[in-house]
Amino acid sequence: MSAPTTQPANDADRSAVFTTGDWGLANRSELSPLRFLERSAAVFGDREAIVYGERTYSYAEFADEVQRLARVLRATIAPGDRVAYLTPNIPEMLIAHFAVPLAGGVLVALNSRLAGPELVYILNHSGATALYFDAEFRHTVAAIAGQLPELATVIEITDPEFGPTPGPVDASGIPGLVAYADHLAAADDLDPTPLPWTVGDENTVISINYTSGTTGKPKGVMYTHRGAYLNSFGETFHNQFTGTTRYLWTLPMFHCNGWCTPWAVTAAAGTHICLRAVRADAVWDAIDDLGATHMCGAPTVCTTIVGSPRAHRVDRPLRITTAGAPPSPTVIGHLEAIGITVVHVYGLTEVYGPYTICEYQQAWDDLAPDERAAKLSRQGVGMLQAENARVVERDRVPLVDVAADGETMGEIVLRGNNVMAGYFQNPEATAEAFAGGWFHSGDLGVMHPDGYIQLKDRAKDIIISGGENISTVEVEQALVSHDAVLDVAVIGVPDEKWGERPRAYVLVRQGESLSKDDLIAHARRLLAGYKVPRDIVFAEDLPRTPTGKVLKFELRQEATQS
Amino acid sequence: MSAPTTQPANDADRSAVFTTGDWGLANRSELSPLRFLERSAAVFGDREAIVYGERTYSYAEFADEVQRLARVLRATIAPGDRVAYLTPNIPEMLIAHFAVPLAGGVLVALNSRLAGPELVYILNHSGATALYFDAEFRHTVAAIAGQLPELATVIEITDPEFGPTPGPVDASGIPGLVAYADHLAAADDLDPTPLPWTVGDENTVISINYTSGTTGKPKGVMYTHRGAYLNSFGETFHNQFTGTTRYLWTLPMFHCNGWCTPWAVTAAAGTHICLRAVRADAVWDAIDDLGATHMCGAPTVCTTIVGSPRAHRVDRPLRITTAGAPPSPTVIGHLEAIGITVVHVYGLTEVYGPYTICEYQQAWDDLAPDERAAKLSRQGVGMLQAENARVVERDRVPLVDVAADGETMGEIVLRGNNVMAGYFQNPEATAEAFAGGWFHSGDLGVMHPDGYIQLKDRAKDIIISGGENISTVEVEQALVSHDAVLDVAVIGVPDEKWGERPRAYVLVRQGESLSKDDLIAHARRLLAGYKVPRDIVFAEDLPRTPTGKVLKFELRQEATQS
Repeated sequence: MSAPTTQPANDADRSAVFTTGDWGLANRSELSPLRFLERSAAVFGDREAIVYGERTYSYAEFADEVQRLARVLRATIAPGDRVAYLTPNIPEMLIAHFAVPLAGGVLVALNSRLAGPELVYILNHSGATALYFDAEFRHTVAAIAGQLPELATVIEITDPEFGPTPGPVDASGIPGLVAYADHLAAADDLDPTPLPWTVGDENTVISINYTSGTTGKPKGVMYTHRGAYLNSFGETFHNQFTGTTRYLWTLPMFHCNGWCTPWAVTAAAGTHICLRAVRADAVWDAIDDLGATHMCGAPTVCTTIVGSPRAHRVDRPLRITTAGAPPSPTVIGHLEAIGITVVHVYGLTEVYGPYTICEYQQAWDDLAPDERAAKLSRQGVGMLQAENARVVERDRVPLVDVAADGETMGEIVLRGNNVMAGYFQNPEATAEAFAGGWFHSGDLGVMHPDGYIQLKDRAKDIIISGGENISTVEVEQALVSHDAVLDVAVIGVPDEKWGERPRAYVLVRQGESLSKDDLIAHARRLLAGYKVPRDIVFAEDLPRTPTGKVLKFELRQEATQS
Repeated sequence: MSAPTTQPANDADRSAVFTTGDWGLANRSELSPLRFLERSAAVFGDREAIVYGERTYSYAEFADEVQRLARVLRATIAPGDRVAYLTPNIPEMLIAHFAVPLAGGVLVALNSRLAGPELVYILNHSGATALYFDAEFRHTVAAIAGQLPELATVIEITDPEFGPTPGPVDASGIPGLVAYADHLAAADDLDPTPLPWTVGDENTVISINYTSGTTGKPKGVMYTHRGAYLNSFGETFHNQFTGTTRYLWTLPMFHCNGWCTPWAVTAAAGTHICLRAVRADAVWDAIDDLGATHMCGAPTVCTTIVGSPRAHRVDRPLRITTAGAPPSPTVIGHLEAIGITVVHVYGLTEVYGPYTICEYQQAWDDLAPDERAAKLSRQGVGMLQAENARVVERDRVPLVDVAADGETMGEIVLRGNNVMAGYFQNPEATAEAFAGGWFHSGDLGVMHPDGYIQLKDRAKDIIISGGENISTVEVEQALVSHDAVLDVAVIGVPDEKWGERPRAYVLVRQGESLSKDDLIAHARRLLAGYKVPRDIVFAEDLPRTPTGKVLKFELRQEATQS
């Protein structure tokens, strides 16, 4: 698991012997996910590429729409311009993942649950010259349109699946707003030669994804064509995507470009099932009626599925890949009980989504359910397209691995083709993130003797109480294992005696009742005394990021203000 | 299917906006298949990596053996040195696919059925400084040892599965010969630090594969780490290799490095089942007792399997990927009848093995068996890691596509990461092969309207009779569809009237009888009159390359001499 300590033996100048010359494209293609749609449209043109409400697109239609939009975009933007999208997981967002880079643009997929000032910051920081938004967000866009000096093109997408029609665009209050259909119609007057599904240099930036920025300003994470291509191949391998895959879009495409899955499912010529919002009913409709085989999401997606009254046993392969927070053994158990396979991965925006995967070991078959679930809740090992992950001592360069004992906590660091090109126009933050030649995740974890990493906490979420580190994740998993608990979030709050103490916000399952004493007694059976929270708040709901992560800083703010 | 006619829209200098800097390894790994063994050994150390006779290697043992050999090799050779192997498909050959590049060497896997002078030519042309050979070839090596001035290290591998023991190495007549076990033992005295599973530059040459050279001198085809990595990923996707794959080695590893499968199966952490010789009994043992799930090979491998008295229905997934010559619809039909899936691919040494795959279309389910088999016998479309194939007018630069009508014959040309770095120390041949920016396969084929290519013939195997082109492949497929025909080869022989006429060499199935008239009558029902051979030779056997291709030039020689 440690870094190489010697130079590769095969690193030598051999140009004298191996004259290979420059043969242009004859023996080199620049890696780009654009190739995936080119191929699937050429080979499987009739196959269902996208299903959404009343709409379906074959692969030929998908590619045609992409070419059409790219033609218009190319006439609208300069190469390298940022093109922002503010939409749910609708077909237009999938189309954008190919059309924007095909036109030479850089896709900036915006988190649709951000507030106006956050959107203004990101649009201005990225310097986006074009914005495409779903009509649902007309009011949001109208409110900020005056604060976006670089924005030259604003396009509204009207989705028949979205209930209220927002009225004609000239009544929108957004200067120069054009309807998507009219915008696309301009393609008819342009050179119809298809744009080549290639890029001049595989290290070209394909997209910028802004971190959700729970603290500080959002940073723009740059992905490249090469990185997106290799990650897509890895996703395809690890998810076993094939031409019969039917991928349900429970994961927002604005989150790490949906972990590169818009490209990966297209590579396999599988079918995308779009989804406007992750509601339990819609998800079960897709499972029961549309034959969904794969989906991804934060643990909250898992909770939504098993918590639905429509939850039932699924008698065909169905796989949920989950990340964003360690899934609790309890939730894993519930999903497996109804025949759903849970694959646990770990990553961040800076690593194109997933980087590690909790690879299943056959020997775990023989473990007791609890032990097995504990193994499955670990973050695992580097994926095939990635490198190994390391856990290193904090704030120390050169990097020093912590003991692989499953106990010693350190920072998780990652490296290689899975790692971003850098933060957009922020070389200082990039330099800091890459200190010592590895990307610093800011996540704290341990390395187990078998080479699997386990996340213990975000650096900023760790509680230091009486000099002892308390992992909020560990406390949360103990509490959620109580049958009456639906979900929980633990934070540190100031404490005169101990410095900090853990406080738990607890959601009780509908129809259940639970006392503080019962829950404390349950936790005492699982945790060391100093980790057991005495400070328990029964809550109605928890503040969350759009991807389902609990916004602990909001809880902390509330706690310090109260 | 045509080449891009415009520059990529996204090809622009954006360095001013996107300052990404040089972050070393933090955000870039050089692509190398070495990573695959590193990962599988780290994650699945206990899993069966290689099965062969009485021997098995776990992934940890496989990686240990590779490190051990690489340590010795590194002390023996200079970076970039060529290391030749002359062995059947034994575990040592798999080990070499990782150990040689790990040590900084370039693997030259020799066709074990070549004659002495051919081996001398290849060893001297490649400048190999080390040769590892299986004891079966001691006599061959002893006979040529004096003609190899660059060779400094000669190692004999003794395989317990190979019957006769050839006696002590000092009685071999090969100066300086060392036994493999003694050679490896030297590792104990060397620095035990594991060599890093990396390469300094992904464009470094990893192996040289010599073309079988039915005409002219063999040419050394250079593969790179990048190409091998990407092709392995593609093989993994198209074959659906997973951790439960059990890959039977019916394809020689000396042929295009076994189509990159030593690396691809290792990437998936599947199990390699080694095989010394492709005998029907051994293959059926592997299917019945060792759970083989995948194998590859020339059509002759398919014929061996279905022709065996042990052939029986297989009731679990078993897939044969075949190439080297278009499989006849008849053979495809026989395999499918016993539950074996046939995947048809096409490639050459110059493209790392397969480049196109005959992707199955669901609509073919509804075709009559004959029509369906005809679809399946086409060479298909570019694989996921490749680009599209083109069929272009012969001897014309810039390249011009022939009509995609399934009729117009042209040369098949290929391009991209699947294509060799070039011919080793042969820039003239490289330039010729890459004329017009595409690799010229020398194969003649047609482009069907659905974008699938179909091979019609090697350029030199086409028969021109009375001004009409006759595809020998087409004639062969017509003849082999007769129930009594086991195999057939068609060549052109000089004819006073027509210039050339087709002659068929026919192997009759055991226990069957067949007259020329019967066969001609059968062919008349399938072919235009001018294509039907009147000149039929019933033969006992056909001369073949080690990969099962019929050596038509030998038949032609015989025909012109007789």
